Amino acid sequence: MNSRIIKNRIKAVQRLLKQKNINCLIVTKPANVTYTTAFSGDDSWAAITHRSVYLLTDSRYIEQAQNQCQHCRIIQRTGPMTKAAAKLITKLKSAQTVTVEKSTSLADFEALKREVKARLKSAANIIETLRSIKDSSEVAAIKAAARVAAQALKKTRRQIKPGTTENELAGMLDFQIRRLGALNSFETIVAFGPNASRPHHQPGSKKLKKNDAVLIDFGVRYKNYCCDLTRCFVVGRPSAFYKKVYDAVQQAQTAAITMVKPGVETRQVDAAAREVIAGYDLPVYGHGTGHGLGLEVHEEPVISADSKGKLQPGMVLTIEPGVYIPGKLGVRIEDDILATKTGSSILSRNCPHVPLSLTL
Amino acid sequence: MNSRIIKNRIKAVQRLLKQKNINCLIVTKPANVTYTTAFSGDDSWAAITHRSVYLLTDSRYIEQAQNQCQHCRIIQRTGPMTKAAAKLITKLKSAQTVTVEKSTSLADFEALKREVKARLKSAANIIETLRSIKDSSEVAAIKAAARVAAQALKKTRRQIKPGTTENELAGMLDFQIRRLGALNSFETIVAFGPNASRPHHQPGSKKLKKNDAVLIDFGVRYKNYCCDLTRCFVVGRPSAFYKKVYDAVQQAQTAAITMVKPGVETRQVDAAAREVIAGYDLPVYGHGTGHGLGLEVHEEPVISADSKGKLQPGMVLTIEPGVYIPGKLGVRIEDDILATKTGSSILSRNCPHVPLSLTL
Repeated sequence: MNSRIIKNRIKAVQRLLKQKNINCLIVTKPANVTYTTAFSGDDSWAAITHRSVYLLTDSRYIEQAQNQCQHCRIIQRTGPMTKAAAKLITKLKSAQTVTVEKSTSLADFEALKREVKARLKSAANIIETLRSIKDSSEVAAIKAAARVAAQALKKTRRQIKPGTTENELAGMLDFQIRRLGALNSFETIVAFGPNASRPHHQPGSKKLKKNDAVLIDFGVRYKNYCCDLTRCFVVGRPSAFYKKVYDAVQQAQTAAITMVKPGVETRQVDAAAREVIAGYDLPVYGHGTGHGLGLEVHEEPVISADSKGKLQPGMVLTIEPGVYIPGKLGVRIEDDILATKTGSSILSRNCPHVPLSLTL
Repeated sequence: MNSRIIKNRIKAVQRLLKQKNINCLIVTKPANVTYTTAFSGDDSWAAITHRSVYLLTDSRYIEQAQNQCQHCRIIQRTGPMTKAAAKLITKLKSAQTVTVEKSTSLADFEALKREVKARLKSAANIIETLRSIKDSSEVAAIKAAARVAAQALKKTRRQIKPGTTENELAGMLDFQIRRLGALNSFETIVAFGPNASRPHHQPGSKKLKKNDAVLIDFGVRYKNYCCDLTRCFVVGRPSAFYKKVYDAVQQAQTAAITMVKPGVETRQVDAAAREVIAGYDLPVYGHGTGHGLGLEVHEEPVISADSKGKLQPGMVLTIEPGVYIPGKLGVRIEDDILATKTGSSILSRNCPHVPLSLTL
């Protein structure tokens, strides 16, 4: 992690804390801890004051923290996290009011309350708001993750044959991802034929038959950053109806991507995709059209019919319309899009949508 | 999921709710939702009253919920979860006071508070306490997961050779797990040589050399239940010091496992392992000696120096002492143990600790 980048982030957080009159922010969400400290392990909290950043971690992670965190003070806790945080807060004289992230559990908040004399408040989306606008290093990281995804899928497509199970295909893809030094950003979804009508199908022992359609929804986490892609294709010859649905979804996606530019409301992006699908007399999908992604695979902004807010330059989001007909088929196409100053850029362009028909 | 089992669980939860004067429990933790509804998807909540169980899910999961959930009423939400929960609570006349799980985020709790006229309270560990005592189907599921883990590791060990990277080895193991129809219960840890001194090392591009030690900490999730195992071995000839450390860790583990029986305090189990390691004049590990596991890979009980509580029949826990010497080595041995009425049973016995030396 570039030292200047992390320094700039910390400054931006501290500026925001001052604006909001927050003396000390207790950061409990793992992605927010990573964002402000560069630490990529688990079970750790950060505390950010106007002057310093502290990382609270334990013996399992101490070597890793010493390597990764140049700009924060590392505290090795031995007991429960809330006790360690309370001890730190007590030492910080500036922190008579302490603000905890709203994503914190009730249990942790109440435990802190018991341990600490300071007044406790909570605040939502302080760091999430900053994270929704990616800097150039973050855009490059998401693009690199998408490149790994494209390579892994390309290799995997070559190995698919009738008889392969959904589980095996998911495993083959995950292996390629690991081989390339990356991780899954979520559990790979592989669905054959009508199984794809469940948008979050769990892969099973179903074997691929000739002319079956395949839906793969997968993500790569590379250097802490996530991509999220869905590709559909037919192992053999697609039916005329499948082709029609595929075209509709593709056009819906293009319509939504075309809408991506600064100042556009997120729900307008959502509406653009749905209109195309409705125009084909196909059932309109029940999920949102997309979501932000970065350190987490789901983050700000949300792109749905009732989402609020406008796109800003530097936002990275998925666009993933679909058509689902239970018992028959499911088609979804998902790419990762950067909102630029003037329009958009497709970060997952290295992963082609075609050929729709995979010849054996 | 056996229909009788889920009915019994619901009855047990409802009995506990009556005892604790809780009219309606809002269940937000995914594993608790699975435990009480049999639903295995994400982003869903349950509401449990003295008479009924409700599942709040969305269009992505509706087919799956209809297949999995025989004993609950399925509600398909379209907007935010807290709004859907509030709407349900308002309909339930019995629910003038509603209790939310303490693992819920402050944000969700406050959103519910805004939407609901009922009084909101919170409670910790209602379902977790029931979950800490496994029924026979759960014990069988964890055992089955451990069997998959053993098979996957056996196949993977045969493919290891000098030049294999940590990432590749992790990917090979994960592929075998997927091929057997299972998932990882957490990201596989593979560490070569001195990398193993970081208990939660993230696999990298380090290549295996002859006579390198390998540490693999991995888990399988099979039919929703987790196992969690760590195995260490040397690809070639172990040094005398490595052998000594391995023996110490093995004896420490045996000492702790021997302590497992109903009525024993969890911290006595922890102490038994540490004493053996200290007796060898080796550094005593900084992490706990173990943790419960089941639907989650970390659940009740905790086995550590400051944990409270006694073992009960039906608890399933890991025992995983280790020795870590930065720059030199790390050895940890982890198995999954059932506390029986009279003592213990090793659920991961199918995954042997030996041979320590893997001959090429």
